[in-house]
Amino acid sequence: MSYFTEETSADVVNNRIGPHTSPRLRRIMTSLVGHLHAFIRDVELTEAEWEQAIEFLTQTGQTCSGSRQEFILLSDTLGASMLVDAINHRAPNGATETTVFGPFHVDGAPERAMGSNISLDGKGEICLYTGRVLDLHGKPLENAVVDVWSDNEDGFYDVQQPDLQPAFNNRGRFRTGPDGTYAFRGIKPVSYPIPDDGPVGRMLAALGRHPWRPAHMHFMVTAAGHCRLITHIFVAGDRYLASDAVFGVKESLIVDYLKVDSDTEAWRANYDFTLCRQAD
Amino acid sequence: MSYFTEETSADVVNNRIGPHTSPRLRRIMTSLVGHLHAFIRDVELTEAEWEQAIEFLTQTGQTCSGSRQEFILLSDTLGASMLVDAINHRAPNGATETTVFGPFHVDGAPERAMGSNISLDGKGEICLYTGRVLDLHGKPLENAVVDVWSDNEDGFYDVQQPDLQPAFNNRGRFRTGPDGTYAFRGIKPVSYPIPDDGPVGRMLAALGRHPWRPAHMHFMVTAAGHCRLITHIFVAGDRYLASDAVFGVKESLIVDYLKVDSDTEAWRANYDFTLCRQAD
Repeated sequence: MSYFTEETSADVVNNRIGPHTSPRLRRIMTSLVGHLHAFIRDVELTEAEWEQAIEFLTQTGQTCSGSRQEFILLSDTLGASMLVDAINHRAPNGATETTVFGPFHVDGAPERAMGSNISLDGKGEICLYTGRVLDLHGKPLENAVVDVWSDNEDGFYDVQQPDLQPAFNNRGRFRTGPDGTYAFRGIKPVSYPIPDDGPVGRMLAALGRHPWRPAHMHFMVTAAGHCRLITHIFVAGDRYLASDAVFGVKESLIVDYLKVDSDTEAWRANYDFTLCRQAD
Repeated sequence: MSYFTEETSADVVNNRIGPHTSPRLRRIMTSLVGHLHAFIRDVELTEAEWEQAIEFLTQTGQTCSGSRQEFILLSDTLGASMLVDAINHRAPNGATETTVFGPFHVDGAPERAMGSNISLDGKGEICLYTGRVLDLHGKPLENAVVDVWSDNEDGFYDVQQPDLQPAFNNRGRFRTGPDGTYAFRGIKPVSYPIPDDGPVGRMLAALGRHPWRPAHMHFMVTAAGHCRLITHIFVAGDRYLASDAVFGVKESLIVDYLKVDSDTEAWRANYDFTLCRQAD
């Protein structure tokens, strides 16, 4: 018989877990309850603060809809998403670093011919993106799929503006040949604020944080026998590189966009992706 | 310039808090982010588990409505509510212990004459509740308000069944005279499950936990110059005393209900409440 006390609280809760609960769930919940109680004890949370927390979580859940995931925004802005990414993608030296997937990927974007322009709305400054997909030994990977997506010049993904942008605007998939190279045209992306008209936006404001993400092009690169790589490249010089609202920036992912004088593009960006083997 | 890394994650997030954030919010968020990241690192949360967590929190928020607060249920079933209660009501020796407020209190229940019966639906076994309201020196407190509420014999509070129960069924307020005594009739309450058809119910099931609360009568006792006391008395012998789904039971709050042979009641329960002074 062990009733709840301030001192034993987490143990009392965790001792209730039944014998048939999966070991993994037991491990997760035991750690979660331990940290939750340690947090409450650490700050000596008041009843008014607890009520505010309940209200905040409730509003966050009720802000979620088919086109909005406020709990992912919360996870992103508290660095939880990047930490989960980091833990699950500890890559060997030399592999391209990962960053957050984000909520704007769309399965089944059209496979386009190398060099095609994915910007379908005629907005923005065109950039020629080139590079290679390599393994850890520098060998080009043939038949790798390079799936790319970005916002448009107004800072919105097509799925955020289904009535204003053509379908699959600024999206496409490209398949490497024997030399492992890829090439496509898209826009030089622009920085944009994450949706900040909900509870997470109010949290950021209370913390004195802005909601902006530095400009980036998303890449998901897959090749047989290799780990799927999910990352961005960021535009060097962007004013939000050091203060990305979701902490996605890594130094190795910042790329110099070069101004060029060409009929087909105003910028060039070159980046090689190095994938580790599935067993690595 | 400090980009996010697995090792420095919480510091990177907390360093973003701006200079004009209130010191209390800074303290709370810094501790919260530290514990959140420590939890993720401790269990090495997988991406699939993170997705499950996002989905669980979203469903919990979307289960909340005017008559249902699923995040309070979550807080209750993880022991967080009782821990906040314990931290905020560290009473001096001799004061009656507190327990969770619960979601079923209603402001403005009718003030009734001493000895009145609050059970208006004619269901359940009637119990005469008696006792005194005292200060820490054992002095009776006059003009104290004893606000009481319980479920009915079917295990539901009136607000859960607005169409089936009379308004203010099993609720009432009583005001003590110069001797500090109170007396009213209500039912011997029954144990009941917390609402378990939502995400929290599914969590309890996965943890091998039942959703039941042991039978209890709620009390909120207020007296000028004294701390408001929010507590229950529990029915001795209830099968769920050692496994209350919300961890509300304390030994000092368990009361023997005595079977009696009376025209007006089948049971008697006696309990004195001791309030500490507001400054104590």
